[in-house]
Amino acid sequence: MLQSALAADAAAIRTCLEAQITGDLRLHAAMRHALFGGKALRGFLVMETARLHDVNPSRAVFPASGIEAMHAYSLVHDDLPCMDDDDLRRGQPTVHVKWDEGTAVLVGDALQSLAFEMAAHPDGAATPEARADLALTLARAAGKDGMVLGQALDIAAETAADPLTLDQIVALQDGKTGALFGWAASAGAVMARADSAPLLAYAQALGLAFQIQDDVIDQTGDVTAVGKAVGKDAAAGKATFVSLLGLQEAKRRASDLVDTACDSLSGYGKRAERLRDLARFVISRQS
Amino acid sequence: MLQSALAADAAAIRTCLEAQITGDLRLHAAMRHALFGGKALRGFLVMETARLHDVNPSRAVFPASGIEAMHAYSLVHDDLPCMDDDDLRRGQPTVHVKWDEGTAVLVGDALQSLAFEMAAHPDGAATPEARADLALTLARAAGKDGMVLGQALDIAAETAADPLTLDQIVALQDGKTGALFGWAASAGAVMARADSAPLLAYAQALGLAFQIQDDVIDQTGDVTAVGKAVGKDAAAGKATFVSLLGLQEAKRRASDLVDTACDSLSGYGKRAERLRDLARFVISRQS
Repeated sequence: MLQSALAADAAAIRTCLEAQITGDLRLHAAMRHALFGGKALRGFLVMETARLHDVNPSRAVFPASGIEAMHAYSLVHDDLPCMDDDDLRRGQPTVHVKWDEGTAVLVGDALQSLAFEMAAHPDGAATPEARADLALTLARAAGKDGMVLGQALDIAAETAADPLTLDQIVALQDGKTGALFGWAASAGAVMARADSAPLLAYAQALGLAFQIQDDVIDQTGDVTAVGKAVGKDAAAGKATFVSLLGLQEAKRRASDLVDTACDSLSGYGKRAERLRDLARFVISRQS
Repeated sequence: MLQSALAADAAAIRTCLEAQITGDLRLHAAMRHALFGGKALRGFLVMETARLHDVNPSRAVFPASGIEAMHAYSLVHDDLPCMDDDDLRRGQPTVHVKWDEGTAVLVGDALQSLAFEMAAHPDGAATPEARADLALTLARAAGKDGMVLGQALDIAAETAADPLTLDQIVALQDGKTGALFGWAASAGAVMARADSAPLLAYAQALGLAFQIQDDVIDQTGDVTAVGKAVGKDAAAGKATFVSLLGLQEAKRRASDLVDTACDSLSGYGKRAERLRDLARFVISRQS
């Protein structure tokens, strides 16, 4: 049920994005390479919270495509040699490996612009208020107070004298992962001009559970199944949820967070069941 | 008259942007370093076309700040070692030289997000339609069909078998420079929900004249006066307006383009005089 919905939404998002990128420069080929092949969890959050508010999926697919473009840009830039220096992503060579570093910088830059084009697109949200608010909140989630802040804190931690504390890792991950999850989960309510507070609470717990599970996978997975390098954080002596809490306690916290996420959805009743399924999936996944 | 208006608008834009970036991480310090010290020509275009349409300057300063953030991001990423590899910008060390490459990537990324935050800001354009349209058109001007496309064509030219033709350079510069100039010059009309066609025509001619003058300065200027490296294109055997047309013919074309730009403004009468002054300034500047 969840898996087929995820696959259907990922396909719709891919169709929407492919229609946007029609050029044949290496820039365009590399943009397509960077965009596709993931689970599109953030895009699914947009689609599913739109359905929860009776927003037409043919409109919701635009902001859903936008958040996937934003996430894809962040991966391309994170993988650069001057950042995490990763060769493998989603089981494929990273953009700077398959093409070159200059192309990877430009691909990330163009994908970020595309994210905003999709968020503000006239075929997306039905009202100008919603289009403007989606663009504004996406900018805040992505930038110096959101995702980029999380990334900057992560880099700063690498040269800090002491490893991060648990509170510091929570703050860092709230930027790196939580901000885009929060935007995605509230997008349906923003499109429908409805209250997004319960969905933001859901997303905050979900994002943290997601990140804890990422640390669990990094500790326990293997590169073939995960599709990217594993064990790098431990090898570098970086503090993670697993190194600070131990594997069992990290798993227990993630499970508690999933309960919190599901509880946040109580007001929506059975209509939010697939969002609950998503929360449970996030901590069961192995890649 | 023009110089004092430029300076006043640049100061207002700086105040607006400084209020946005209050953190004390190296990310924030480097963002401030990247943003300030230029002439803010693109921001001035927003402010001046807003005045032309009786838009309150206290609102126009938000999209004006946005276009300056967008321009600043493009410079930080263009200067990276994997791109143009420049050490000097506006007479100061570039971000990756003063800090490091990872910081430069993040600074550019955060500045692009900030550009959209400013374009869609509730204190900026007075209507949701204008906020949404400013964000949408900025995304198109900045991304894979605009500025990044121009940059990608520029990189592709470096490894091409033949130097670019004049038409190809015009197309390349239309993306690299023209797209942001066009957005900036039409922003006042977009904010006022007025026709932007004459301002777009003005901006297209202005942008090309600007770029020709950049090539002239690159050929004739010295590094101290210009504040960045000069003569790199010629040394690399890259086709430029000057290499293709010769210095005198390039200057004549730029002068013709300024006439075209000024003619586009005839419908606005004397109210557009400062925009005409700007066009004349663009080809007289030496940095």
